[in-house]
Amino acid sequence: MAGDKEVVLLDLWVSPFGQRVRIALAEKGVDYEYKEQDLANKSELLLKSNPVYRKIPVLLHDGKYICESLIIVQYIDEVWSNKAPLLPAEPLARANARFWADFIDKKVYECATRLWKLKGEEQEAAKKEFIEIFKLLEGELGDKKFFGGETFGFVDLALVPFVAWFYAYETCAKFSMEEECSKIVAWGQRCMERESVSKTLSDPNKVYEFVLFLKKRFGVE
Amino acid sequence: MAGDKEVVLLDLWVSPFGQRVRIALAEKGVDYEYKEQDLANKSELLLKSNPVYRKIPVLLHDGKYICESLIIVQYIDEVWSNKAPLLPAEPLARANARFWADFIDKKVYECATRLWKLKGEEQEAAKKEFIEIFKLLEGELGDKKFFGGETFGFVDLALVPFVAWFYAYETCAKFSMEEECSKIVAWGQRCMERESVSKTLSDPNKVYEFVLFLKKRFGVE
Repeated sequence: MAGDKEVVLLDLWVSPFGQRVRIALAEKGVDYEYKEQDLANKSELLLKSNPVYRKIPVLLHDGKYICESLIIVQYIDEVWSNKAPLLPAEPLARANARFWADFIDKKVYECATRLWKLKGEEQEAAKKEFIEIFKLLEGELGDKKFFGGETFGFVDLALVPFVAWFYAYETCAKFSMEEECSKIVAWGQRCMERESVSKTLSDPNKVYEFVLFLKKRFGVE
Repeated sequence: MAGDKEVVLLDLWVSPFGQRVRIALAEKGVDYEYKEQDLANKSELLLKSNPVYRKIPVLLHDGKYICESLIIVQYIDEVWSNKAPLLPAEPLARANARFWADFIDKKVYECATRLWKLKGEEQEAAKKEFIEIFKLLEGELGDKKFFGGETFGFVDLALVPFVAWFYAYETCAKFSMEEECSKIVAWGQRCMERESVSKTLSDPNKVYEFVLFLKKRFGVE
């Protein structure tokens, strides 16, 4: 039984990657111990459990470590397979879900970081790229309720934590996601109707404060 | 039936990513049509089938497109599931295999490109990093026959195409994988005993010629 083994999550409250794992655990109804990590002073447990990247999130299950958010989410989906499937059942739909989740992993965070770290022309280029990324995602979403269709799933869960960061991105780079990508904003609102999402996502104002703290730390005025 | 549908692979002979897919298809005994692509003059079919990245490999199965090599390999493993499983069955072992295949994807090719593209101190830094990457992989391999244990699988298939590139990397950056990472070299030889691998991997001399062509194209003396 997966359910009777200890589950611990090493995470940071604002992390979109950690939030993916928290949403997956909430969808599956898994009880777990949340251990907030101080990334300025990494714990022995974090260094031991993720020696390759030394990053959160890390899931500890029955004393074993699983790292990298999308890999953790697939693990959760396979272990607690009796409830709320996150990946679809059919191989082509699974490949498509993996493709878009991987696309989000490769593109969104890196580009978004340039939105608040850079200025002038470089920031404008990042903004253009960010909007292009979300236009591609809007194309994939189409007129569906969720990326997987009628059911909230893997791609939704991979992307939705960034919705709480939109306010910070928009404020730093002076643009409006509602104006540029209204379908994504509406999709984000539909996701927020789920308790697994609304109870997990950070307050956008607190994310913005966190980004201001990062700007200060990296010497960005 | 998966077997009675048309399978086509868009690929480039020397691509380590395409070779992963060819090894997977060979392991599963799948017949397919191989379509070599001219990346300097991309075909309509490639642009249509992978509009996001416009890259090989792309697998066409029954008219549907699947992109990104590790996602294609998982698709192949799920569709032709009756023979030669590539991912292990147990969730923790699957997560571990995905972790290391993803690590290879994130690290090896990018670092290896710096081995032939850069010079002097930058090349030395890339060489140090390359060896560190393979030391980590040696640590994961340990004394096992293959990364998954006794059976050739997902991580082996993700890494082994790079073995045919070692000679080019060693010659460009002046080092010896045998001296630095002899366990990886021995593992590569074990993999080459499999027909799926030996029939797929490029001749190291031809890979080196290809790298010399790339150097010329990028203006590296």
